[in-house]
Amino acid sequence: MRSPYAQTHEIPKGLGAKHEAEGVLEIRAELEPGLTDIEGFSHLFVIWAFDRSGGFDLVGTPPSDNRPHGVFATRSPRRPNPIGLTVVELLSREGPLLRVRGIDMLEGTPILDIKPYLSNVPPERLRRGWLAEAEARSEGKQ
Amino acid sequence: MRSPYAQTHEIPKGLGAKHEAEGVLEIRAELEPGLTDIEGFSHLFVIWAFDRSGGFDLVGTPPSDNRPHGVFATRSPRRPNPIGLTVVELLSREGPLLRVRGIDMLEGTPILDIKPYLSNVPPERLRRGWLAEAEARSEGKQ
Repeated sequence: MRSPYAQTHEIPKGLGAKHEAEGVLEIRAELEPGLTDIEGFSHLFVIWAFDRSGGFDLVGTPPSDNRPHGVFATRSPRRPNPIGLTVVELLSREGPLLRVRGIDMLEGTPILDIKPYLSNVPPERLRRGWLAEAEARSEGKQ
Repeated sequence: MRSPYAQTHEIPKGLGAKHEAEGVLEIRAELEPGLTDIEGFSHLFVIWAFDRSGGFDLVGTPPSDNRPHGVFATRSPRRPNPIGLTVVELLSREGPLLRVRGIDMLEGTPILDIKPYLSNVPPERLRRGWLAEAEARSEGKQ
């Protein structure tokens, strides 16, 4: 992964954080045929390794709230299996290089897999738990 | 993973396949605190291992089309890193057991990670590449 973020503190975090950063998914040359037809998809799932995270906390307080939550209800890097998942917008492809927008990984992050983003959850059925509550509290304070 | 599917051929595949099957994510007892507050989310990402898939094909023809595509533009199990990703609906939780709907994994599949599903891609910006084309061709034939 080629990313503008060299250090964790540079990555936008917390409520309302926007992930507009652009970067490049650099696929190994011998895997390039696996990218055939990927240009047709506007968005991709990128599965990657939190390679600079050590250990895990089963319960922790995320940057977007002041209350603790279980790790599986957050995107914390400190998780039992340090696997990250990011939805990115595919801007263009040049051979084995995918230019994407919306990254929140550090420079040099190892990519484990890429998959097409195929469908949304019906909006009327989507509930966002503690995050929606934290947003509501935050808006109440403003 | 507790799933009604014992064999790959039982899992609905191809265009228009519906994943309505229910199953249970069985989390190890010592990890249960990591599930705190997860009930507030309607949908979860489940990252899992294709533990009964061996080898990979960089280009292959998926069940939903009669044309070949790159593996990273498909959800094929035969991928360089055999990692699966499924969005499931969380129906209920009993301690370390999460009852979910929408599974496409086999009975006994190892779960690598669980994350909350937080937001959709803006529908007006979502393009679905070869899958949309295959659907259009299929509809044209009917």
